[in-house]
Amino acid sequence: MNSSKHEGHGLLPRPLRLEPRWGRLELGRGLRIELPPDAPPPVVELVRRFQPRFDRLLGAAAEEAATLKLAPTEAAGNHPALGDDETYRLRITASGAELDAPSVWGAAHGFERCLQLLDRDAGGAFLAALLLEDGPRLPWRGVLLDLARHFLDLPTLLRTLDGLAAAGINVLHLHLNDDQGFRFESRRCPRLHERSGSRGYLRVEDVAELVAAATARGIRVVPELDVPGHAGAILHAHPELAAGPAPATLPRAFGPSRYALDPSLDATWGLLEALLDDLVELFPDAYVHLGGDEVHPEVYAFEDARRRAWMSAEGLTDAAAVQAWFTRGVVAMLAERGRRAVGWDEVLHPAMPAAMTVQAWRGAATLEAALAAGHDALYSAGWYLDLGYPARLHYRFDPAAPVAELVAAEAALATEPLLADVGDGILALQAAAADTAKALPAVARRGRLLGGEACLWSELVTQELLDVRLYGRLAAVAERLWSDPVAADEASFECRLPGWLTHVERVTDCRPLTGDPALLWRLGVEPQERLAVETLLEALEPVRWYKRLLGVDGLASRREGRPPQRPYDADTLLHRPVDLLPPDSPAMWQLRSALFALAADPEGLPARVTLRDFAGRWRMLPLQLGALQQRSQPFLALADRIEQLAELADLLDELVDAVSAFESPGMALRQRFGELARIAAAAVAETELAALRPIGDWLESRT
Amino acid sequence: MNSSKHEGHGLLPRPLRLEPRWGRLELGRGLRIELPPDAPPPVVELVRRFQPRFDRLLGAAAEEAATLKLAPTEAAGNHPALGDDETYRLRITASGAELDAPSVWGAAHGFERCLQLLDRDAGGAFLAALLLEDGPRLPWRGVLLDLARHFLDLPTLLRTLDGLAAAGINVLHLHLNDDQGFRFESRRCPRLHERSGSRGYLRVEDVAELVAAATARGIRVVPELDVPGHAGAILHAHPELAAGPAPATLPRAFGPSRYALDPSLDATWGLLEALLDDLVELFPDAYVHLGGDEVHPEVYAFEDARRRAWMSAEGLTDAAAVQAWFTRGVVAMLAERGRRAVGWDEVLHPAMPAAMTVQAWRGAATLEAALAAGHDALYSAGWYLDLGYPARLHYRFDPAAPVAELVAAEAALATEPLLADVGDGILALQAAAADTAKALPAVARRGRLLGGEACLWSELVTQELLDVRLYGRLAAVAERLWSDPVAADEASFECRLPGWLTHVERVTDCRPLTGDPALLWRLGVEPQERLAVETLLEALEPVRWYKRLLGVDGLASRREGRPPQRPYDADTLLHRPVDLLPPDSPAMWQLRSALFALAADPEGLPARVTLRDFAGRWRMLPLQLGALQQRSQPFLALADRIEQLAELADLLDELVDAVSAFESPGMALRQRFGELARIAAAAVAETELAALRPIGDWLESRT
Repeated sequence: MNSSKHEGHGLLPRPLRLEPRWGRLELGRGLRIELPPDAPPPVVELVRRFQPRFDRLLGAAAEEAATLKLAPTEAAGNHPALGDDETYRLRITASGAELDAPSVWGAAHGFERCLQLLDRDAGGAFLAALLLEDGPRLPWRGVLLDLARHFLDLPTLLRTLDGLAAAGINVLHLHLNDDQGFRFESRRCPRLHERSGSRGYLRVEDVAELVAAATARGIRVVPELDVPGHAGAILHAHPELAAGPAPATLPRAFGPSRYALDPSLDATWGLLEALLDDLVELFPDAYVHLGGDEVHPEVYAFEDARRRAWMSAEGLTDAAAVQAWFTRGVVAMLAERGRRAVGWDEVLHPAMPAAMTVQAWRGAATLEAALAAGHDALYSAGWYLDLGYPARLHYRFDPAAPVAELVAAEAALATEPLLADVGDGILALQAAAADTAKALPAVARRGRLLGGEACLWSELVTQELLDVRLYGRLAAVAERLWSDPVAADEASFECRLPGWLTHVERVTDCRPLTGDPALLWRLGVEPQERLAVETLLEALEPVRWYKRLLGVDGLASRREGRPPQRPYDADTLLHRPVDLLPPDSPAMWQLRSALFALAADPEGLPARVTLRDFAGRWRMLPLQLGALQQRSQPFLALADRIEQLAELADLLDELVDAVSAFESPGMALRQRFGELARIAAAAVAETELAALRPIGDWLESRT
Repeated sequence: MNSSKHEGHGLLPRPLRLEPRWGRLELGRGLRIELPPDAPPPVVELVRRFQPRFDRLLGAAAEEAATLKLAPTEAAGNHPALGDDETYRLRITASGAELDAPSVWGAAHGFERCLQLLDRDAGGAFLAALLLEDGPRLPWRGVLLDLARHFLDLPTLLRTLDGLAAAGINVLHLHLNDDQGFRFESRRCPRLHERSGSRGYLRVEDVAELVAAATARGIRVVPELDVPGHAGAILHAHPELAAGPAPATLPRAFGPSRYALDPSLDATWGLLEALLDDLVELFPDAYVHLGGDEVHPEVYAFEDARRRAWMSAEGLTDAAAVQAWFTRGVVAMLAERGRRAVGWDEVLHPAMPAAMTVQAWRGAATLEAALAAGHDALYSAGWYLDLGYPARLHYRFDPAAPVAELVAAEAALATEPLLADVGDGILALQAAAADTAKALPAVARRGRLLGGEACLWSELVTQELLDVRLYGRLAAVAERLWSDPVAADEASFECRLPGWLTHVERVTDCRPLTGDPALLWRLGVEPQERLAVETLLEALEPVRWYKRLLGVDGLASRREGRPPQRPYDADTLLHRPVDLLPPDSPAMWQLRSALFALAADPEGLPARVTLRDFAGRWRMLPLQLGALQQRSQPFLALADRIEQLAELADLLDELVDAVSAFESPGMALRQRFGELARIAAAAVAETELAALRPIGDWLESRT
C-alpha cells in the first residue's frame, strides 16, 4: 500500500470512483494484454495499439508477464457518436488486471487509465491494486483547433489525437476556414483550397487518415465551415459572393473583418450546397459546425435596391434577421444531408430552430439563454486557451453549475489580480453575451447541456508551438468535462497537473514540457546554451488576454476606441522567446511548493536543494546568456528580465538562509523584494516575471 | 561571409566539393521548393516530404519566400539499386537556390544537405551562398540493425530511416532471425513467426510500409536470413531440422550456440525454398544476406552413419566443406530467384562462387582475401557499434585504404588506452580472420569494394535505447563511406559531430541526445530530478568492448578459457543508468574544448562560465540525488561516482582559479587528481568516469 496511485493522486481527469485495495500487481516482466476470444477487428486494433505503449514503459512483455485481461467488448458503431457508452471498469489485484467495458471506446479509456496508473519504486514497476469504475460526466468533451490562422498539418493532428485521448477528450472540432485561409480540399470547389489554401490544407486522403485515427481513439471529428462571416478566404477565391467588400489578396490581418457571404445570391447557396456535400463525404460525424460568429453588423445593413427588395420579399427587417435567415438555410441544408448543426452563440435568435446546438463562447448568459430556448448547448466561454490564462482560472468554470454561479465565476475573472489590467475588456464581452441572451424567449422544453470545448484560436499558435500551448490548460477543461464536480479541487488539480504533463510527454509524441527543438534553433540558441535558456524561459510567462495579441499599445488604443495597430498578422514570424512560453510555468509550481515546504520544515533538505538550485542557476544567467544576447536581438530585449532574475537569486538565497536559521525574513529583504517587484511589474518583450509571484505569495503568507 | 556554413563546418558527412561564394540567401519569409513542370510522382512526393521539414525550421513559407528550384529530375527506378547515380549539385546565391540531380535519390541527398546548411544569426535565417557538388564515394553505405535479440518495431524503423537519410546511409540491413527470435511474418511457414516471433515480428504489411518509406528516401532494405547457424529460433519452430541440438524453449542466452540447420535433410531445403520465396516477395532489393557466420565447428563434424554417407556422396570431407556446400546451395536458390547473395566472412572458402558478396566483420584480412578471390566485398570489422567504442575510433578505418594500413589500424585498437584491458580479445578476433584468409587462393579478376556497414548488434539495445546508441558512431562510418579520404580529419569530425547530432534531433523524430523519456521513468527518476540525473549521466560512459556484454567477471572467465557466467540474456531488463549511456558523452567534448579554450585565453569568459557551470552542477549532485538513491538501487550503486564527481568539482574549480590567475596548476592539485583518477579507474556499475579524461588530458598537455 505504498503507492500514491492507490489514492488516484496521479490521475487526471479524476475518475468517477476509485477503491484502493491491498497489494500490487508486479510488472517486472511487463504487462501483456489478453484479447477476448473472437474479438472484433476494432478491439484487435485497439490492443495492437496499446501493447507497444505498455512495452515502451515496461520493456517488451515476456512470456511470464502479468496479464491485463480484456473482457468481451462490442465494437460499437463504425464511428463514435454523441452519447455512446464510454464507461469501463478496471480491477487490479496482485494476480492480474481485468478491464470490462461495454464498448470499444470505454475500453480505450480503460487502457489510457492503466497507462496513467503504471508506477515503479525500488521493487520495480507495478500497478497498485484497486477497483476503478469510471466514465465521463458529459458526453461532448471537445477541443477546437483553428487551422485557418496557422495551418496544423496531418502529422501534428495525428500526434495530437494521442494527447487528447490521454485527457479523455472525445471531440476534435476543426475550424477549417477563416479570413486567413481555407484548409480542406474541396472536390467540388477546388478554387477554394487552390487559391486560399496557401501554407497548407488537408487533402482528401489526409482527412480520411485523420478520421480513421480519431475513430480508433473514440474521438469524433466535427468540422466547422465558418459562414457567413469570417469569409475572407472564401471571398478571395469567389469575390462575386461578397455581401460587403471582398479582399484584394488573401487577408493576413487578424481581428474582426467585414468579409461575409451575400445570402441574397443563388450562387452563394450553390457554393454552400457543394461545400456541405464535400464535408459530409469527408467527415462521418452527425454534427457539422456552421460558425455564425462575428458577422459585422454593418455588412448586412443593406442599402441597395436589389437587396432591399430581396429583404422585403423574405420578410427580413434588419441585419440580425438576415443572418438568422441565412443560418436557418444552412441548418436546413444540413438536415437534408442527415446532419445536425452547431453554431456560435451569435446564432441565437427567435427565428432559429431548436434543433440547432449552440456553442456559448461569450459568457454564461448565452449558455443559459440557449438552454432555456430549447437548444442543446456547449460551453466554451471560460475556456479560451488562446488568452494565456493559467490553468487554475479555466478550472473554475463548471458548465453545469447554476447559471448564477457560472456568471459570477466569469465576472470574478475581471478582478483576478493576474488580469487586473484587462478586466474591462473581459466584462465587455460578457455584457455582449447578456445582450444577445435578453432578446430570447424561453420555451417549455429546455435543451440539454451536452458538454463543452476548450478553444485554442491560433493567431499566435503554429504547429511547432501547439503542444506547449495546449495541454497545460486543456487538462483543466478535460477534468471539468469528465469528473464529478463535487470532487473538483483547484489545489488537487494543480498538484496533479505537472505529473500529467510529464505523462503525456512520456506516452505520446507530444511535447508539452520540452517543446519542439526546432524552435530554439529559430531563436538562435546553440546547444550549449540550451539549459541556461530553459532556466530563463521557465521563470517567465507571457502577458495575458488580448494584451498579447494586440500588444500593450494596441490594447490601450482599443480601450480608447481607436483601431489598434496590431503587432501580429498571419505572416508574423513567431520567433521570439515569448512565443515559446506556456502561460503556466511548471517550474514555478515547483518553486512555490519548495518555498512552502521549507517553511513547514526549515531543516528539510529536498526543498532547500531545490531553492538553492534555482538561485544558483538564475545568478549564472547574465554570464551564460551574454554571447546569445550579443547575437540575438530578442534575447537582448530580455536583458532587464535576466538582471532581475540575478537579483532575485540573491533575495531567494537570503530568504532560504533566514528560514533555515528559523528566522523570519527581515524588513530589509521585504523592502528590496517590494522594490524589485514594482520595477519588474512592467511587461518586458511581452513577458511577465513569473518567478516573482511564488516568492511574493510566500512572503505575503508569512506576515 | 559571416557563416561558418560557407566553409562547410556544419556538414556531416563532408561533401565532395564546396565553393563558398559571396552573399547569402535570406530566409526570413521561409523557403519554398519549386517543382519542375511535369515532375514524376516520386519527385512530387519528395518535395511534399521536404517542404514541411523546411517549414518546421523556418516557419511556413510565405508567398514571397525564397525559392529552392529543383531542376527536372528522373524518377529513377521503382526502387533504389546498387550503383544508382546519387550525385547532386546545389547552387545558392543571394537571389535563390537551385538543385540539380540526375536522379530522385540525388535530389533527396541535396534536400538533406540543404536542411543541414540552414543557418541563422541576428539578421534571421539564411543560406550562405555557395556551390556544392556532391555525391558519395562508395555505393553501399549501410547499417545493420539486429531485430532478433531485441525487436525493433515499425515506428522505430520508420523514424530511423530519417536518421539514416540525414547521414547519407543508403542501405538498411535487417538481421531478421537469430537464436532469440524470428522477426518477419512468413506466409509459407507461419509456424516460424508464430512460435519464435514472441515480443514482435514485422507483419507483411509492416514490411511493405517500411520498404515504401525507405524507397522514398533512396534507401535499400537488404534482409538477412541467418543460416545455417544462429538458427535457434528456426529450430524452436522446426526442431526436426537440427544438425545438432534443438532448443527446448526459445533461447534467451546470448553468445555462440550450437543451433544449426541440417544440410543433409530435404526438409531443410524445403523450408529454405519457402523462406526465400517469402523474402523475395517482401523485399525488392537485388541482394539477400544469407548470414553464414559462427557455425559451431563441432556441429558439422558428423559422426553418424547416415550423414557420413551423405558427406561421402557429396564429396565433403570436413565441417568447413559441409558449410560451404550448404552456402553454395542457398546462393544457387537465390540466383534462381534473380537475387544476389551476401554472407559474413566465414563463407570464404575455395568452393564459394565469386558471385557471392562477402561482408568482412572479423578483420581487414578477410576483406583483402575476399577481394583477391574475386568477391565483391563490404567492410564492417572496424565498425561494430555494439562494442561501445567512441566515434573517433571507428573513424580511423578507411575501408579502401591499402590492406596493410587497415590491418595496422585494427591492430592499433589493441593498444588504445581506452581499450587497454580488452586488447587481447580484439587481437584474437583479428587472428581468426587472418586464419580464414590464409586458406584462400587469389584469382585474376579482383572483386570490387562496394562499401561497408556499421553493425549495431542488439543484445543490449532496445527500441527505446536505439537512438542514443546509434547515431554518435554511425556518423563516423557514414563520413568514411561518403567522403573523400584525403579530407578525413579526426579533429574536424569530432568538432562537427555534436552539431550533427543536434541537427538529427531537430529535423527527425530520433532523439540521439535526449533519449526516450520513458527510460528515465523506468529508472525511477521524478521530473524535478531530471536535470541532476542528466548531469550525472553525461559525466559517465559505459565500459567498453565485451566487458559490457560479458561483465567484468565474465570477461575474466572467458580469458581464462572458462565459460563466462553471462550477466545478460534476452529477458534482462535494461533498466540501469549504464543502459542509457552513449559510448561518447557529448557534454564531455564540451568540457574538453572549454578547458583548452581557457588555457588558450585565460581571460575568456565563455569557457570559464562553462567550466564553473560543470563544477557547480557536479558539486550539487550528492544533495540532489540523495532521495533518488534512497528509492533506487541502480542509483545507489553509483554512489561512488557521485562522490567522485563532487570531488572533481573542487579540483576543476581550483584548476580554473589557477588558469584564470595565469598560473600553472600546482603539484598538489596534480597529485590529488592522480589519486582520484586511480581510485575512479575501477568500473562502477559498468560505468567509467568519463569526466576524468578531458581533465587528465589537459593536465598532461600542460606538463
